[in-house]
Amino acid sequence: MSDEFYMSLALNEAWKFQGLTYPNPAVGCVILDKFGKILSIAAHQKAGCGHAELNGVALALKKINPNLIFPKNPNEIYNFILENHNNLLKGSKAFVTLEPCSHIGKTPPCAKLLVALKFSEVIIGYKDENKIAKGGAEILKRSNICVKFGVLEDKCKELIEPFLSWQNGNFSFLKLGASLNGVLKGGVITNLESRQMTHKFRSLIDLLVIGGNTVRIDRPRLDTRLINGTKNPDIFIYSKSKNFDKTIPLFEVRDRKILIQSDINLVKNYKFCMFEGGENLIKNLPPFVTHILIFFSEKFINLENLSINLNLKLLFMDKISDNFYGWFKILR
Amino acid sequence: MSDEFYMSLALNEAWKFQGLTYPNPAVGCVILDKFGKILSIAAHQKAGCGHAELNGVALALKKINPNLIFPKNPNEIYNFILENHNNLLKGSKAFVTLEPCSHIGKTPPCAKLLVALKFSEVIIGYKDENKIAKGGAEILKRSNICVKFGVLEDKCKELIEPFLSWQNGNFSFLKLGASLNGVLKGGVITNLESRQMTHKFRSLIDLLVIGGNTVRIDRPRLDTRLINGTKNPDIFIYSKSKNFDKTIPLFEVRDRKILIQSDINLVKNYKFCMFEGGENLIKNLPPFVTHILIFFSEKFINLENLSINLNLKLLFMDKISDNFYGWFKILR
Repeated sequence: MSDEFYMSLALNEAWKFQGLTYPNPAVGCVILDKFGKILSIAAHQKAGCGHAELNGVALALKKINPNLIFPKNPNEIYNFILENHNNLLKGSKAFVTLEPCSHIGKTPPCAKLLVALKFSEVIIGYKDENKIAKGGAEILKRSNICVKFGVLEDKCKELIEPFLSWQNGNFSFLKLGASLNGVLKGGVITNLESRQMTHKFRSLIDLLVIGGNTVRIDRPRLDTRLINGTKNPDIFIYSKSKNFDKTIPLFEVRDRKILIQSDINLVKNYKFCMFEGGENLIKNLPPFVTHILIFFSEKFINLENLSINLNLKLLFMDKISDNFYGWFKILR
Repeated sequence: MSDEFYMSLALNEAWKFQGLTYPNPAVGCVILDKFGKILSIAAHQKAGCGHAELNGVALALKKINPNLIFPKNPNEIYNFILENHNNLLKGSKAFVTLEPCSHIGKTPPCAKLLVALKFSEVIIGYKDENKIAKGGAEILKRSNICVKFGVLEDKCKELIEPFLSWQNGNFSFLKLGASLNGVLKGGVITNLESRQMTHKFRSLIDLLVIGGNTVRIDRPRLDTRLINGTKNPDIFIYSKSKNFDKTIPLFEVRDRKILIQSDINLVKNYKFCMFEGGENLIKNLPPFVTHILIFFSEKFINLENLSINLNLKLLFMDKISDNFYGWFKILR
C-alpha cells in the first residue's frame, strides 16, 4: 500500500483524540516492521501521556513481545524502551502526522527514540514549525534515517489547526447534538458515549460558552458528572441582562468562574473554548468559531430542524457506539 | 494488527460497491504477503467483472511485479495469473468477507485460485450458504490451507443482506439526498458525484419507485444521463390516479416500462428496487423497504427538514468528494 494509506491510518487515529490532547497537538503514528507489516497504530491521547511515537513504539514492541510489561509514566516508558528494545524494531518505518519532537518535555525527544531503535525511515506529514519542538527531522537525518516530508501534508495540517489556533491565542468550536434530520431539541438527542465525550471536553476547555436564553430555559448544570470529572469548566453566559435565577444548577457547581457578558469577543481571551448553543448563539456564531463538532443520533425525529445556512467541510467522522460524530470546519 | 482490523479493511472496500454488484453479492478481500505486509485491498465491483479474490490477487501481483500487464476479461485474468504468478504469493494470507466460491461462473472457482497460488491461510467472515457457490472452504482445507471462519461474522453478514434479500425475491432501499440539517427540498442538494452514484443505481435496478405527487410537481426525467447510461430504469409511480401529463420527461425516456399503481406491494415482484421519494412515500415506507442510502451535503440549509420518526442503524459511511453518504438499516 502507498505512504498515503498508512498516513491516513495515522490521521484517523489522531483525530479520535482531537481537542482531548489540549494543550498539545493531536498527533498520530503508524509503525511498520522492516517487512512492511503494520505493528501499531497509535496517537497522542492526552497531555502528560505519551507522545504518538512513544505510544506507537510501545505498542509495536508489545506486539512483537507480548511478555513485555511497560511502566505507566511516559518518562519511565521511554527509558524502559531504551533498555529493553533489543533491536526488535531495527529497520522499522514510522509514519507520523507531525515531525517528531526534538525537545525534552514530559519525555526526552521522540526523534532520539526513533534513532536509538534504529528505525530506517520516517515519513512525516507536516513539518513542525513550533519553536521549541522543531528540528526532529534533522536529528533523524544526522543518524542516516531516511526522512520523507509532505505525505498528506494538507490533511496533517488540518489535524493540527486547532493546536495552531490555541497557540495563537484562541481555538473555539461549536458542539452540537443532532438527529439525522437536523433536530436539536426535544430532550436528550445523542447517546451516553457522545455526552461523555462532551463532558471530557468540558473537563479540558478553558471556557464553556452558552446563550443566556438557553440558561434560562434549559436550566443546565454544565458539569462533568458523566465522567465523574473533578474539574468543571468556567462558564461564559452570552447575555445582555445579568439577571439570572441563581438556583439554576450551573451556578451551584463549585470552583467555577461565571462570566455574564454581552461582548462575545471577550471569549477570545481564553485559549480553548467550546460553544454549546442555543439556537440564537448558533445563528450568530462569531467568526473566531472555526470548527463544529456534531454528534449525530441514528434517528429521524418528527420535530423541526435547526434551520440556518452554514457551509462546512468534513474533516473526520467516526462511529461512537450507536451514534456517529464528525469534526467540520466552517467555510465562510 | 488483528484479524478484525484486516477484515474491516475488506468490509469497507466491499461496502463502496454495495448494490452496484447486483445480482452478485458485495465482497471484499485483503491480501497480506507471508511477512504480513498488506499487498492489496480489493472488492467485487460489478457483475461480470472479477470476484474480490481475483481482483485482490491481481492487485497483489501487480504490487510485487509492476511490469505485469493483465488482460481485461476476468476469465483471461484468471488464466494469466495461473501462468504468471511465479509463486510470488506463496505463503500469503487472504481475508475475505464471504467464503471463496467453489463454482465455475464467469471465472473458475476463487478457492482453486488461492490453492494454485499456494496461499497459507484464508480468513473468512461469513460462510457461503449459496447452493451454487458454497464449499470453497472445503477445497482450501483439502489443500492444507489454514481456514478460519467467523471474523467479524455479523458485519460480513450485514454486508450481504441486500444480496440475500434479492435472492429471496426483493431488496428495496430508499435513496435520499439531504443537507446536514435534514433538508430534502429546495433544488439540487448533493454534489455531482453523489448524483452520478444514484444514476449508477438507476442503471442497475429493476424498478425505480416514486410517488405520484413528486412526479406531478418535480416533473423528473429519472434517467441515467449523468453517467451517459444506456439502460434506464422501469418506473413504478405510486398513485391512485392514473392521470399524468405525458409531457413529463420520464414518459419520454425510451425502452422503459411505466407502472402506475396504488398497490405498493406489487413492487415486491421486482428483485432490486430503489425508492426515490417524495415525502408522502417516505412517510409511508412499506415494511419491505429495509435500507436507506443517504447522501449528505456538507451544508446546513435555511429550510424545513423532513420531519418524521425513523430509527436507523449505520452500516457504512464514506466521503464522496465534498459530500458523504451512509448506508443505514431501518430498525422497526
